[in-house]
Amino acid sequence: MLTQRYFAAVSKTNSTMYKHEYKVIVRYAETDQMGFVYYGNYAKFYEIGRVELIRSLGLSYKEFEDRLNIFLPVVQLESRYLLPARYDDELRIETILDELPEKMISFRHLIYNPQNFLINKGVVKLLFIDKITGRKVSAPQEMTDVLKKHFE
Amino acid sequence: MLTQRYFAAVSKTNSTMYKHEYKVIVRYAETDQMGFVYYGNYAKFYEIGRVELIRSLGLSYKEFEDRLNIFLPVVQLESRYLLPARYDDELRIETILDELPEKMISFRHLIYNPQNFLINKGVVKLLFIDKITGRKVSAPQEMTDVLKKHFE
Amino acid sequence: MLTQRYFAAVSKTNSTMYKHEYKVIVRYAETDQMGFVYYGNYAKFYEIGRVELIRSLGLSYKEFEDRLNIFLPVVQLESRYLLPARYDDELRIETILDELPEKMISFRHLIYNPQNFLINKGVVKLLFIDKITGRKVSAPQEMTDVLKKHFE
Amino acid sequence: MLTQRYFAAVSKTNSTMYKHEYKVIVRYAETDQMGFVYYGNYAKFYEIGRVELIRSLGLSYKEFEDRLNIFLPVVQLESRYLLPARYDDELRIETILDELPEKMISFRHLIYNPQNFLINKGVVKLLFIDKITGRKVSAPQEMTDVLKKHFE
Repeated sequence: MLTQRYFAAVSKTNSTMYKHEYKVIVRYAETDQMGFVYYGNYAKFYEIGRVELIRSLGLSYKEFEDRLNIFLPVVQLESRYLLPARYDDELRIETILDELPEKMISFRHLIYNPQNFLINKGVVKLLFIDKITGRKVSAPQEMTDVLKKHFE
Repeated sequence: MLTQRYFAAVSKTNSTMYKHEYKVIVRYAETDQMGFVYYGNYAKFYEIGRVELIRSLGLSYKEFEDRLNIFLPVVQLESRYLLPARYDDELRIETILDELPEKMISFRHLIYNPQNFLINKGVVKLLFIDKITGRKVSAPQEMTDVLKKHFE
Repeated sequence: MLTQRYFAAVSKTNSTMYKHEYKVIVRYAETDQMGFVYYGNYAKFYEIGRVELIRSLGLSYKEFEDRLNIFLPVVQLESRYLLPARYDDELRIETILDELPEKMISFRHLIYNPQNFLINKGVVKLLFIDKITGRKVSAPQEMTDVLKKHFE
Repeated sequence: MLTQRYFAAVSKTNSTMYKHEYKVIVRYAETDQMGFVYYGNYAKFYEIGRVELIRSLGLSYKEFEDRLNIFLPVVQLESRYLLPARYDDELRIETILDELPEKMISFRHLIYNPQNFLINKGVVKLLFIDKITGRKVSAPQEMTDVLKKHFE
């Protein structure tokens, strides 16, 4: 028997943005004694959202680090908590690139609960840093090349 | 486009045990500065393994809590770290029930990396506690009923 | 031998705000493979900052929940990551109340590394919710009473 | 006002072991919806215990990595959960070295709640690995030198 619990669905796209969806299940480890997901754990949901968006483009965050020697530290995080997420909820993480990355990349996240209510909105901004020099660089060419067609 | 990243595969069974497999991807949040998964994060992998095994039986850990008023605190954990798990690795968690649960339930876990090497072995033992009385109880009937056919 | 590793220091106050300082040591569990504190872990530093500020007032967050039946879910989080925090760094968390809480409470955090550089700025906003009714309430009287003298 | 919340107390020693105590406060982030500390979070308490034991010897785990190019991956973890730890509990972590480390180092942990009940027992075993070669090495001389006097 093969049950499918986690899956990435429906990478939609239009001329002004790139959007990707991914689902996660809330684990006991992520709840707190209020019975909800601890507010600090959404940062990991955003991480999952952005990494899987990158994978949906045929790219790999891991390769940015290993092959291109670029890593992407977070410089800004904003989060609005609208409704609680509960244990065992399957959450749908919608991750959106509204702009082509240049010096910075900005991911927008909308998280929905199983009843399809929007429970959380987040924005995460990251820089591109050269691992060797430690200096800021622009978004890797291969990323912008792949993304361009979604923004034309 | 629908890419499948997380999925539970192949719940094998024989006359002496019940086995279930589930895959997770290692996230940045789970690594430490050694570049490996932090040793404390395997507990969450075990949690995922046992919850998904229960789900594969058509049962729900959440329902144990909500409907049966039983919760399952961990009383014992043992873990052997054989090889490191790295960022973005898709790990295969094999979770095994070797015995029908009675006063206690014991899950055995084998975790494999993408190269199919066994990287971690774990055993987690949990009690069944009545939420109202706070006292130990036996495994819920509906759990043992479903499991019995796999142990005959 | 008694070595002091964690301590809350110097609750300063003036007529327009209330400020409290607390120190934490960065643990391996909190680093990621970049060698820095994972961006999601600052939420816990903010939690420590605000809980210890409340304690410095002679109050107790735990008592809000247990005795007053009020809990404080986070509704907004903003974070700027200016410099990385590294393993074993002793971080100084400065937590500031700029306004008397009414319907909401807003904590401002400034985190400094051992070289006294500001490495992170955060703002966390929380509501007061009655545990029984699930409805928004105002800041508990005993909190505002204690705080008022710092804002006059 | 300076309130002391975290402190390392009383590094006792006798001719057959080395013992060190350290206190931590349970944070909301560490609880789960059972209202107790999530079982996976004890690994971090053990980490804190062993790092602070090393510090109490005048040594530094960080220096092992940075200066001696040795890191200490965990190879084995055993944990018994006797009683729950609750939010805001100040836990006393007793960390014990029963033997001089050679190829491996084994830390034993006893965790007590504020009512002084033993709530958790753990054993963590770690190897010494040369960062450059990736090979097992023996405990660093400066560690065994400092420890020897406690074991004579």
